[in-house]
Amino acid sequence: MKDSILHYRKHFLDHLGRKTWPESPRDLYEPIQYIMDLGGKRIRPALVLLSADLYGAGPEKALPAAMAVETFHNFTLLHDDIMDDAPLRRGKTTVHEQWDTNTAILSGDAMLIEAYRELEAYPPESFKPLMQLFSLTALEVCEGQRYDMDFETRQQVTVEEYLKMIRLKTAVLLGCALKMGALVGGAPRGDQEALYEFGIRLGLAFQLQDDYLDVFGDPETFGKQVGGDIIENKKTYLYLRALQLASPEEARELSDLYSIKPADPGQKVDRVRQIFRACGVDTESGEKIREYTEDAFALLQTLQVPDSGKSELRGFGEWLLRREA
Amino acid sequence: MKDSILHYRKHFLDHLGRKTWPESPRDLYEPIQYIMDLGGKRIRPALVLLSADLYGAGPEKALPAAMAVETFHNFTLLHDDIMDDAPLRRGKTTVHEQWDTNTAILSGDAMLIEAYRELEAYPPESFKPLMQLFSLTALEVCEGQRYDMDFETRQQVTVEEYLKMIRLKTAVLLGCALKMGALVGGAPRGDQEALYEFGIRLGLAFQLQDDYLDVFGDPETFGKQVGGDIIENKKTYLYLRALQLASPEEARELSDLYSIKPADPGQKVDRVRQIFRACGVDTESGEKIREYTEDAFALLQTLQVPDSGKSELRGFGEWLLRREA
Repeated sequence: MKDSILHYRKHFLDHLGRKTWPESPRDLYEPIQYIMDLGGKRIRPALVLLSADLYGAGPEKALPAAMAVETFHNFTLLHDDIMDDAPLRRGKTTVHEQWDTNTAILSGDAMLIEAYRELEAYPPESFKPLMQLFSLTALEVCEGQRYDMDFETRQQVTVEEYLKMIRLKTAVLLGCALKMGALVGGAPRGDQEALYEFGIRLGLAFQLQDDYLDVFGDPETFGKQVGGDIIENKKTYLYLRALQLASPEEARELSDLYSIKPADPGQKVDRVRQIFRACGVDTESGEKIREYTEDAFALLQTLQVPDSGKSELRGFGEWLLRREA
Repeated sequence: MKDSILHYRKHFLDHLGRKTWPESPRDLYEPIQYIMDLGGKRIRPALVLLSADLYGAGPEKALPAAMAVETFHNFTLLHDDIMDDAPLRRGKTTVHEQWDTNTAILSGDAMLIEAYRELEAYPPESFKPLMQLFSLTALEVCEGQRYDMDFETRQQVTVEEYLKMIRLKTAVLLGCALKMGALVGGAPRGDQEALYEFGIRLGLAFQLQDDYLDVFGDPETFGKQVGGDIIENKKTYLYLRALQLASPEEARELSDLYSIKPADPGQKVDRVRQIFRACGVDTESGEKIREYTEDAFALLQTLQVPDSGKSELRGFGEWLLRREA
């Protein structure tokens, strides 16, 4: 399976390498090129290409949609990094640090427009549904980011609200990528919807697993700092669900631990981990991930594509959730 | 003529008044509603409606395009106000002051997407050219903003570079508004282009007049602080052309005056005004404005619309350049 993702990624990277941005104004386009070239797994464009391929549409046809999705994704990273005041992205200086905040705002705006422009490669009849899906998804991602920001300062967040937030912020773009590939490939309407929902469920599983690995992952293989969410008092699924599952005493303690940011957070991280284990939210979260994943895979059975295509998608899901880099 | 603009503006404001934004997430949509309701002359949406009307397309058909253009325009104001760290917009607190910078960034992003979504009201065949024109214009406006930012810190800016900057930052959106109305109305291709170029020339005349009034305007009727550009050392047409027209001594003095920001700028403003008058750039700028305006009006002769329509457009241009509020 990794081979197949590598194959699509290579097609995308070749295309990206051939892309030339205007020379001027330099400080509008250089930051765009900079962040587009920072790397990453290129999951979303690979999904567009894979999905289109299921219906016989080759890379030459699907690459503009793949570029649109990846450009949009990087636009969100650019603006999110300003909002989080993040110094690093993929180990490199963020745009607002390398240039300045105003540059990052404006180049981000231009990227969002450039993402839209990629879709101009398609004829009017497919252009419109592609644009509608893309705009709706883009707006939902903004809503997800807004909820994420709101939850930082809100006392009460329900598990349902959290799941809605990650659906908007993360999952819909995976669904969109798959559905765009299906649209480009001329898939039947039912397949378009099934692929979208497959992406949503896989995205939810992926984010819950990210939350899990942030707490229980292996520092050697997890890309980010293990314990980071606990240190930042981030209200993830594990935390919100633990508040419900834990004893009143431990729930109280957990809530108290999430109101402090000690200089040396080691003890806090350990104690939170203990509470998560004691109330069983670690196991429950694993079940939830499996549930979303199985739901996703079940949807594949409805697709009107050869079994090899279904295995391809299933393999992608398994690879994504194994998280090999 | 003012009657006609008032008429189109009223159609637009009624439509805007009926527009409902989603309730949630509140801090994503409230800032959008806030800036959209701040007021302004609504020149751009009025131009869309006027232009469509020339070809028999009524407001119900042209209003989505008018909303797209006005939403985009307000998006640029929202993000520009962050970049300029402006405390006020139309006499009210700016979004990034009323809420915060992150809110202004994210709500601006959502506005840009909402602007695109307005165009979904059109069928595929007109949707695509509308979107292409809109995207190209949006990107050009970003380029214009980037050049404007660059010129603040650049020593050497040519008159040509300045004219290119104001074309991108201001004029293309007027051209776009007129051409979108023409597209919606099904105008012949030649008319679409002529109206676009009419908008460009009118936009250039408008901006040069804004520069002129900023220096020589009547404080009673000019909306902004007269002398503001001189105080801010803004490299406008008047300044850049004066450097060419003035004697070497006065050019040197002018350049020196544009390197300081005295606490009490009265004397500096007076002296710059004197130099502008002495070298004749005040008169020359008036001629340039007249030239662009006449070019714009000449284009109207080529339009395949009744003479009443041409007078309507001419009347709009005269009104815009008389600058009654």
